[in-house]
Amino acid sequence: MTQQTTEWFQELCPEAGSALRLQVTEPLHAEQSHYQKIEVYQTTHWGRLLVIDGLIMLTQRDNFLYHEMLAHPALFSHPAPRQVAIIGGGDCGTLLEVAKHPEVERIVQIDIDERVTRVAEQFFPELCAANQDPRVELLFLDGIRWMEQAPPASLDLIIVDSTDPIGPGEALFSPPFYAACRRALRNPGLLVQQSESPLLHLPILQRMQRQLREAGFAATRPLLFPQPSYTSGWWSATLAGNEGALELLREAAAEARPFTTHYYCPATHHAALALPPFLQQQLAVVE
Amino acid sequence: MTQQTTEWFQELCPEAGSALRLQVTEPLHAEQSHYQKIEVYQTTHWGRLLVIDGLIMLTQRDNFLYHEMLAHPALFSHPAPRQVAIIGGGDCGTLLEVAKHPEVERIVQIDIDERVTRVAEQFFPELCAANQDPRVELLFLDGIRWMEQAPPASLDLIIVDSTDPIGPGEALFSPPFYAACRRALRNPGLLVQQSESPLLHLPILQRMQRQLREAGFAATRPLLFPQPSYTSGWWSATLAGNEGALELLREAAAEARPFTTHYYCPATHHAALALPPFLQQQLAVVE
Repeated sequence: MTQQTTEWFQELCPEAGSALRLQVTEPLHAEQSHYQKIEVYQTTHWGRLLVIDGLIMLTQRDNFLYHEMLAHPALFSHPAPRQVAIIGGGDCGTLLEVAKHPEVERIVQIDIDERVTRVAEQFFPELCAANQDPRVELLFLDGIRWMEQAPPASLDLIIVDSTDPIGPGEALFSPPFYAACRRALRNPGLLVQQSESPLLHLPILQRMQRQLREAGFAATRPLLFPQPSYTSGWWSATLAGNEGALELLREAAAEARPFTTHYYCPATHHAALALPPFLQQQLAVVE
Repeated sequence: MTQQTTEWFQELCPEAGSALRLQVTEPLHAEQSHYQKIEVYQTTHWGRLLVIDGLIMLTQRDNFLYHEMLAHPALFSHPAPRQVAIIGGGDCGTLLEVAKHPEVERIVQIDIDERVTRVAEQFFPELCAANQDPRVELLFLDGIRWMEQAPPASLDLIIVDSTDPIGPGEALFSPPFYAACRRALRNPGLLVQQSESPLLHLPILQRMQRQLREAGFAATRPLLFPQPSYTSGWWSATLAGNEGALELLREAAAEARPFTTHYYCPATHHAALALPPFLQQQLAVVE
């Protein structure tokens, strides 16, 4: 998947006939963990770059978009998010955003590969600033098994911050996993999962929405946001919850949030929910 | 600027240390016009690709985003757009969107390079479907001179659909041009101009807003939208008008638009106006 010269890191996207290259000055780290190949590069313009199995996970320059949009819209849509689980998320950038919410009482993060977190702690310490927060528990286990064994009705929000639906991340895009999430959530629980590019991966968005509804989530909808270092520069997460749950936004709380964000605010929250006509049509097929 | 193999077209973005590659099956056209190098390729996944001076102008797959967002937000913000001028726009994709508005009485397009339009007519006929519309006049002249000589208060909307602010497009990002536009507009006239990537080209957005205000446009604001085949996948246009003019949206008319759009709708219009906190801060510097 990875073609390397001395100057460029290249991520190839065969399903889109495209490739994104970032100019690098040096490789900082490379290892084959039990699960995947983990690499870190220094780039010329994007800060440090984290790569897993040849795919860009994040850059220091633009990861704020993805991490903020995976965390804050769901957290400000839930009326009282106290118990949060993050499945995947080993780089800890999403965890950092979740931990900014004082009303959250406990955050359990379950990533199968401890090495991703250790590499993040070494090369992206700014993303790991909440790892020592007493509300945080880091587990390095199979997230699907963990979810199957979670006490019923014990969670308010599940964030699935996984790699693409190929490789280790694949089973996180599946009906049994969604059913386990549904059992573990208590009313009015929400799930949010990264769901690829709305332009290039429409079949994935469609399948996810169908499977989430089959698992008992009455309402599903995508959140759309820019993410320059991911293929197409346009990315999505999919929100799922009970009927009516996704239209809620604690707007005053979001406006008065007691922490800094670079992309998230109530206006961009609403913007992320705006569905262009082609997506309205393509996702209506699901219903 | 262009590195070519038999398989890839590559657009290099030196100021971002990045490059975007699209897989191509064959070159369809290449010429050096009086002004610039014009190329057309067949890609594997993006339809045909138009390149000028090594930079991606459009692909058949995703140009709807840029062309719709350059046309419809401005047209539905103006209370009665009848006289429209497009500066640049030689591929005619923006013109096609403008011509969808029945209330527009005349569209003059002024592009310095006739060859771009002729190439578009040959290789992108779907974008040129409005070129024969009796309301349309295609001029191949220097857009800055044309604007300087336009009768004062003769236009309702000016759309600047230019290449980047280097090369032939440079003088379209300048105070004298904006002053000429201001003179040519009649109250409550609007200007909208493509303004590069909000992540990568912030100094350009800042300078444009400052210069537009100095030229007498009391209000300026960016429109943000995805554009996968442009650097970073996240693009902007800048709207300029009188105080209060940019908050208007003929929402009922936009909702009931008598034509098809793929990205534009009232919800994405509002979404494009949502300013993330980092842009609020960076553009506040301008004021």
